[in-house]
Amino acid sequence: MGEAKWIWYPGEFEIYHHMLLSFRRQEKGCDYPCVWPVSRPETGARFTKSFAAPAGGSFTVVTRGRGMVRIGSRLYRVNEPIAVPPGECRVEADVFDLNAFPSIFIDSDILVTDGSWEAELFDARPVPAACDPAFTRPQDDPAVFPFAYAPLSPAAREEICGGVLYDFGREQFGPVTVGVPEGGEITLVYGESREEALDPENAIVRETLTSADGAVRPARAFRYIAVLGEAAGKTALSAALEYLPMEDKASFSSEEPGLNAIWEVCRHTFHLNTREFFLDGIKRDRWVWSGDAYQSFMIARYLYNDPSVTERTIVALLGKPPYRRHVNTINDYSAYLIISLAEHCAASGRVGFVRTVWENVKALYAFIVSRLDARGYAVRRTGDWIFVDWGVLDKEDPVCFEQIVLWKAHLAMAELSRAMGEPDVYTESAAALKERILRDFWDDEKGAFIDSFASGRRFVTRQTNIFAVLYGLAEGERRAHVIRNALLNPALPAITTPYFKLYELIALCEIGEIAAAQEYISSYWGGMLREGATSVWEAYDPNASGAAHYAMYGSPYGKSLCHAWGSGPILLLCRYVAGVRLTDAGGKTFRVAPDPGTYKDFTATVPVGAGEVELSYKKPFCTVRATAPGGVFADGENETPLEPGKTYTFKLKA
Amino acid sequence: MGEAKWIWYPGEFEIYHHMLLSFRRQEKGCDYPCVWPVSRPETGARFTKSFAAPAGGSFTVVTRGRGMVRIGSRLYRVNEPIAVPPGECRVEADVFDLNAFPSIFIDSDILVTDGSWEAELFDARPVPAACDPAFTRPQDDPAVFPFAYAPLSPAAREEICGGVLYDFGREQFGPVTVGVPEGGEITLVYGESREEALDPENAIVRETLTSADGAVRPARAFRYIAVLGEAAGKTALSAALEYLPMEDKASFSSEEPGLNAIWEVCRHTFHLNTREFFLDGIKRDRWVWSGDAYQSFMIARYLYNDPSVTERTIVALLGKPPYRRHVNTINDYSAYLIISLAEHCAASGRVGFVRTVWENVKALYAFIVSRLDARGYAVRRTGDWIFVDWGVLDKEDPVCFEQIVLWKAHLAMAELSRAMGEPDVYTESAAALKERILRDFWDDEKGAFIDSFASGRRFVTRQTNIFAVLYGLAEGERRAHVIRNALLNPALPAITTPYFKLYELIALCEIGEIAAAQEYISSYWGGMLREGATSVWEAYDPNASGAAHYAMYGSPYGKSLCHAWGSGPILLLCRYVAGVRLTDAGGKTFRVAPDPGTYKDFTATVPVGAGEVELSYKKPFCTVRATAPGGVFADGENETPLEPGKTYTFKLKA
Repeated sequence: MGEAKWIWYPGEFEIYHHMLLSFRRQEKGCDYPCVWPVSRPETGARFTKSFAAPAGGSFTVVTRGRGMVRIGSRLYRVNEPIAVPPGECRVEADVFDLNAFPSIFIDSDILVTDGSWEAELFDARPVPAACDPAFTRPQDDPAVFPFAYAPLSPAAREEICGGVLYDFGREQFGPVTVGVPEGGEITLVYGESREEALDPENAIVRETLTSADGAVRPARAFRYIAVLGEAAGKTALSAALEYLPMEDKASFSSEEPGLNAIWEVCRHTFHLNTREFFLDGIKRDRWVWSGDAYQSFMIARYLYNDPSVTERTIVALLGKPPYRRHVNTINDYSAYLIISLAEHCAASGRVGFVRTVWENVKALYAFIVSRLDARGYAVRRTGDWIFVDWGVLDKEDPVCFEQIVLWKAHLAMAELSRAMGEPDVYTESAAALKERILRDFWDDEKGAFIDSFASGRRFVTRQTNIFAVLYGLAEGERRAHVIRNALLNPALPAITTPYFKLYELIALCEIGEIAAAQEYISSYWGGMLREGATSVWEAYDPNASGAAHYAMYGSPYGKSLCHAWGSGPILLLCRYVAGVRLTDAGGKTFRVAPDPGTYKDFTATVPVGAGEVELSYKKPFCTVRATAPGGVFADGENETPLEPGKTYTFKLKA
Repeated sequence: MGEAKWIWYPGEFEIYHHMLLSFRRQEKGCDYPCVWPVSRPETGARFTKSFAAPAGGSFTVVTRGRGMVRIGSRLYRVNEPIAVPPGECRVEADVFDLNAFPSIFIDSDILVTDGSWEAELFDARPVPAACDPAFTRPQDDPAVFPFAYAPLSPAAREEICGGVLYDFGREQFGPVTVGVPEGGEITLVYGESREEALDPENAIVRETLTSADGAVRPARAFRYIAVLGEAAGKTALSAALEYLPMEDKASFSSEEPGLNAIWEVCRHTFHLNTREFFLDGIKRDRWVWSGDAYQSFMIARYLYNDPSVTERTIVALLGKPPYRRHVNTINDYSAYLIISLAEHCAASGRVGFVRTVWENVKALYAFIVSRLDARGYAVRRTGDWIFVDWGVLDKEDPVCFEQIVLWKAHLAMAELSRAMGEPDVYTESAAALKERILRDFWDDEKGAFIDSFASGRRFVTRQTNIFAVLYGLAEGERRAHVIRNALLNPALPAITTPYFKLYELIALCEIGEIAAAQEYISSYWGGMLREGATSVWEAYDPNASGAAHYAMYGSPYGKSLCHAWGSGPILLLCRYVAGVRLTDAGGKTFRVAPDPGTYKDFTATVPVGAGEVELSYKKPFCTVRATAPGGVFADGENETPLEPGKTYTFKLKA
């Protein structure tokens, strides 16, 4: 017998935990439900397996739901031993769980549950059952997410007016345990900044508790916690870090001033946002956003080289059809989700995963297509949010940016359909759309794409043109124009959000402007660190000062101070400075083309498919060693195959 | 202020209670989950209302879920008073409830919740909120179905070997309360028959209890209850009837032998099966079946003339897209559901109700169409059950019966789309299908429709030809042939199930053979009563005897002894003997054309749209009085308008 695992229908685990997550937001003492439709698990499932039972064998179907077991025409109870007659035997466990999702566990000498079982949702479409290495014992509960915990000690405890302030030294996330004295009442104020913890009226997260409330409070983000009220001094408080133990596969260090601290803060930020799914930030909504997740997938590919959180996030964001609204209500975010999946498939080669979500992906694509206009353009329909970026764009329909991500989504569907062995009916749509985009949005005079042709304003923005380059819509001459007239045109308004800044920095690196990206890392991330950041903020304005840094969305502490998209330097340093890129699905082949830019030294480890690449650069020499086969070192036109385990030293061209 | 009512998103109440119902089945001590996908409520909903707030007003949003209230940009807590600034004000309550379904209640001097609110599922498609007259107080809970209860006294208590047997006199349904003595253990055996209660091994419903179990047991069907075990004698037991207080709008009495008892047993059976939804039977699965419900809708239209249970049942059966399987897994049942809705709309004129389910109906129709073959024929796909009837039919694809109900479903969609003001794209499909059916399934030599042309067997069955007549596919000459060669052909196998028997009896009445129907009522229903039935059985074989009557589905007590479809005589007596039929949507016009058949007398009350028709027949005179306008009395060609409130006496033609 192999190892027994709890099993369930694929996706139900993710759907359930995403549902819980989506309804955990609290703001100013209110529960704040998610503002788009959130899918939930199905009510019942059937698990089946045929096996040859030996004489005298028995097993128990463990479940926290209810149901029964059918063998032949006989019914048996769950959670009680079942003596099976010897011989070929088909076990059918019909289970329902209206609180969580149907799951079962069998660990016996004659039968165990694992991925060899089939599961179906009473829809006569059995598929291989899903399981997770964290749930292997009868007492495990797939309805409880397997986080790890570590005690946290406050770096400082300070008496303040009306209470006590705890400082945990840097941004943290986890449950706080309070012992409110009998009859007492306290208010806990969570602060990512000291100012927030000291401002109960305006802090995003606060709660008032008496001794009747549970001592262990839900896991939340904080660096500071203020305990206010008469009972504050007599209230014991302890905290724990709640985290997902993800192993770092990438590292980067340098003697460049501040760079190691930036890497560490990015890493800390990214780990805090790596949970059931990739979160946008850990304080405020803690919802899963497709645009944010798209960037996290890119970062995670380098930092973790582990598909688990990426795949959970894709399943959660997809939810279940019928689609009644765009992912996160945002048109671009539906497209990003499909593009994310295609990029994940291309990078990881995990075609089997794609198969588990393929029907939903096609349904989401059909939803997107159902809302296009007669020309095949994405336009704003009731309930839609054409987001792009917080920056100023001309959003009069149809918006060029939306068409570029739509075009990429058509191409992503084409790639995915090929991986699924289905006919490609998508490339044609992409080609037609591309032709239309070039006809309607390309401005020959400006030598760039305009945001909208319908408005007559003919605005050129960086955002639109960055994506034309990143997604390869602008080719040849046109690409050169776009770079000159948009990406490197100082007259255009600057990108101000770090969300879009990451796309811009990637684009700059792609066009060889790595020094500009390095300069920005020093000034922007370095600037935040000089302001005392212990995790990367949602946004940073170098011209602001003091508590003004924490305001956003019209609220003094509305800004998240620990935002995943801020971890972009991990991606930039690994992909462009260390220069490691996979060149096939699954990373069986890869290319190492470091570009130190302005850096005089660095040491990096970057994962590839089945191993890693270690680089050490000291101007002008770069030492490289790959632990896996399939690598090539490239310096301009020169390419050198990398024998695994062997150390090479190259003198880089200036 | 009007009356305050709990409000929710339309359909969520029904979906929730249907979900609970679908997972209440127990058999031989096992929980027996429903074997098709069962929909569940959405996680969250937004409720909105704009109103002019007076100065100094306040209200509380009561909910059993969680969430918040947004007025302008301010957030407020639920379940706490909210002081509203005076002036025009838009209230937005965002609520989630992962246990039941989102609902809120406001009862204040300045604002109440009711059908004037809008509800949406965060899909930007607000619709009028739903409510129910049973939930008007803050302490009411829409998650608890508003059944009524009445104590039941056992007609007899009898010491039996190993325990005590209670006889409640006739078929009942409700919770049983047991006081198991401390440390004792008993087994409750529920019996629709005495034999079943005395056979714990084979009884469908039994449970073993100790004093640690809850004293009030889930509501179940029983006439007899055996308490077994050493503690049985010391175990106090009481029972209650759990019922839906539905008012009878129809009555029928006669001096014909046995007819009053048949009416009463039919009525009792139908009331017991009228619950959250129309059940098939109250003992065994208690799932909602579309074919059974279709017949219940027809019966209910006469007995209750109240759309509530019919509409709840339609909503529950529809569930929510995406449709992954036919309704109850049965192809014909998906079609019946659409036909049921069209017939309900035609009879009640409740276009507003149709609108609340229209999107789902279209999705179900699309599902049906997606599974047709290239010729447009309904065929068996993976997971499908071509049921028709338990009787023997030639089910080699394509099956004629399935095409007839499909044809009717196309026509039903056409009717519904007209009611919804949408273009009719269905009539064309119906016409094409009809042509194909007549070409492929009509056998000129046999003068009837054959079940299958593909098998080469050219079987003629009553079932197929009954529907050709009932649905009007067979017209003119062809109809006459079908009647002669199938419906009245003694050489064809008889219909043996009461489910299909009702269709046959309706067809017989439609072709004027009322005496045959009356004879069958006396022999079949009368026969059951002579065997001691206190409710109508799922099936009855006059040639069986003793406990053999209770066997079905390979189990000695597998037969339901209280099955809704057995209440058909209510329909037959009201529609054909009393002869009352609505002639427009909502019953503003109606026709009274009694046909006493072999009966020498009867007195009947039959509801029409806004009133009722009272008839009293004593051969050959029929006295008629209608309380509502719009009626016409018809005797053959002669028609007499019925002035409301006025009593008419007609001498009926022989």
